[in-house]
Amino acid sequence: MVEATAPIRVAVLGAGGLGKAAAQIIGMKRELQLSAICDSHGVVVSSEGLCAQTFANLSGDLVEGFRAAEADGQVSKNGGVRTVTEAEAFHCSDPIGEILERAKNLDAILIALPNLPNEFIPDVIRRFAQETESLVFVDVLKRTRAVELLFELDPLVRQAQSVVLTGCGATPGLLTAAAVLAAQSFIEVEQINIWWGVGISNWDAYKATIREDIAHLPGYGVERAKAMTDAEIEALLNQTQGLLELRHMEHADDVLLRRVGVVDSVDQVEVGGVMDTRHPKKPVSTTMTLTGRTFEGKRSSHQFVLGDETTMAANVIGPALGYLKRGLWLKSRGLFGVFGSTEFLPMIVR
Amino acid sequence: MVEATAPIRVAVLGAGGLGKAAAQIIGMKRELQLSAICDSHGVVVSSEGLCAQTFANLSGDLVEGFRAAEADGQVSKNGGVRTVTEAEAFHCSDPIGEILERAKNLDAILIALPNLPNEFIPDVIRRFAQETESLVFVDVLKRTRAVELLFELDPLVRQAQSVVLTGCGATPGLLTAAAVLAAQSFIEVEQINIWWGVGISNWDAYKATIREDIAHLPGYGVERAKAMTDAEIEALLNQTQGLLELRHMEHADDVLLRRVGVVDSVDQVEVGGVMDTRHPKKPVSTTMTLTGRTFEGKRSSHQFVLGDETTMAANVIGPALGYLKRGLWLKSRGLFGVFGSTEFLPMIVR
Repeated sequence: MVEATAPIRVAVLGAGGLGKAAAQIIGMKRELQLSAICDSHGVVVSSEGLCAQTFANLSGDLVEGFRAAEADGQVSKNGGVRTVTEAEAFHCSDPIGEILERAKNLDAILIALPNLPNEFIPDVIRRFAQETESLVFVDVLKRTRAVELLFELDPLVRQAQSVVLTGCGATPGLLTAAAVLAAQSFIEVEQINIWWGVGISNWDAYKATIREDIAHLPGYGVERAKAMTDAEIEALLNQTQGLLELRHMEHADDVLLRRVGVVDSVDQVEVGGVMDTRHPKKPVSTTMTLTGRTFEGKRSSHQFVLGDETTMAANVIGPALGYLKRGLWLKSRGLFGVFGSTEFLPMIVR
Repeated sequence: MVEATAPIRVAVLGAGGLGKAAAQIIGMKRELQLSAICDSHGVVVSSEGLCAQTFANLSGDLVEGFRAAEADGQVSKNGGVRTVTEAEAFHCSDPIGEILERAKNLDAILIALPNLPNEFIPDVIRRFAQETESLVFVDVLKRTRAVELLFELDPLVRQAQSVVLTGCGATPGLLTAAAVLAAQSFIEVEQINIWWGVGISNWDAYKATIREDIAHLPGYGVERAKAMTDAEIEALLNQTQGLLELRHMEHADDVLLRRVGVVDSVDQVEVGGVMDTRHPKKPVSTTMTLTGRTFEGKRSSHQFVLGDETTMAANVIGPALGYLKRGLWLKSRGLFGVFGSTEFLPMIVR
């Protein structure tokens, strides 16, 4: 089932909590090679592939953190599946442009950028589709509007003979694909309810993600959340002992499920959850519940429950990489364009 | 996402509990048309598509039951999505051969035959692949050995420009695809455990299925189970108040998961369960549990739990029809051959 023996060369856009987790997991997979990673200020690139261990404890600015790890001798340690002896790390004004220039040495791009505003990631993909070809992109977008913008890029992506798999995290992603499976038993689907639980021991590491979540609170929104200072976020969280409970979130699980016919109306899909920003333990178990009626007229629900010890990073980036491999499967068969996580099973990456 | 506006013309092989459920569900779907169904003694065929309502209460010999339903005026009632005014129903010595002769009026074949011996269904597919082309086949095979025999037909199926999707019931099938999803969160999968619960109010309707299950009991086997009389089965069930508990079943979830790389060894997959042959209520909730270790070194389990009110028929035939539509998706893109339920998401059939 393995497509080629040379590792898949992956660039990761974004070096926050999810981007660093992606770098670490990629470094543990022999089928993958982390060829490049960037944040908003710089890029780290290696044609040999970067080492997983480097990213386990990195914090702050990507390039500075990488240089410090190099100085500590961490980069040459074999902390993943390979030892890296040569990598470039530099600050620049257009890190995504630097990655774009190296596109012919890449097979796939994992987008772990914070999507504020909604157009940000769609614009990144548009830029790549206009200037490169034959690439696979995977995003872990969450908002309905953002994923809708992605699907509008379908003609451009096809023309670039590329593949985009969108909404490939946990929700949308893993849990949404599980809903497509759950739907199979029912002649009519009534409702899908996704209720997530997240525990973070240190919210600093996930600032961008939390900012996106705050945008869902009543009275907030994408612009307001983007404009908040860290101190304002701290103050908000203090009001609720560090707990953020979100309901009726704008989540692309809705359009992704409607797209494949699981539901007729986006109102049948409900996403919400509880984040504890002060403790690593999840306040509730992340659960997808699909309720429907069977051909025998029985009303019932199937459930998919994630283990409490599994973190957001594992449940978002794991599936994203599985979908990335699926993207290469599609591209090698000439199936170009933008697809959602509800259309395919992700593959297993070794 | 709908491939064509004309309904998909389906033949169902087998008219036991699962075959009849398939006929009923197909009759409720506007995208599908039940063009033919057979048992071991006869065939019922209609170019307009057969009506769902007819099969809700049919028992005994297929042709005789259908004629009785016609006489009762049930066939012309609109009990599904269409009203049928003309159908042939006749006894014959080679019902599968009769279906084969009508293959050019068919798009897909759902195989709901009891697979005793192991070679039975593979031989049926071999026969079709040798004499027809451009068809989609879906089976709900359970045994490892049977599914392995199916995969051996890959070159023949490709040559026939056809598609076979194997192991597309509940387990293997729905629960196995759920394991592929669950695996995404883990850097290493330790074990998959599928524990099913089935309640049947009247085991007469599922004689063949129960016979296959008895074959899994210690001291039994495929040949012995096949040779048992109904009275012998009754006597066996009486010893345990109608409960059949099965462990370490030979189930193709193992090879299907190994095939796509979820596990390295079939020993990591365990399937078993409890069937109550006297009550419709499930003795336990059907659950797939996948245990693994995340990239952060945490050991955890994801679970997929089926609603207790959902029956074997809903959980086997629902997914089978979803995979049938996926088969047509593959065929229309020139992707021929034998695939397992672990390689794709089933589609939604309206």
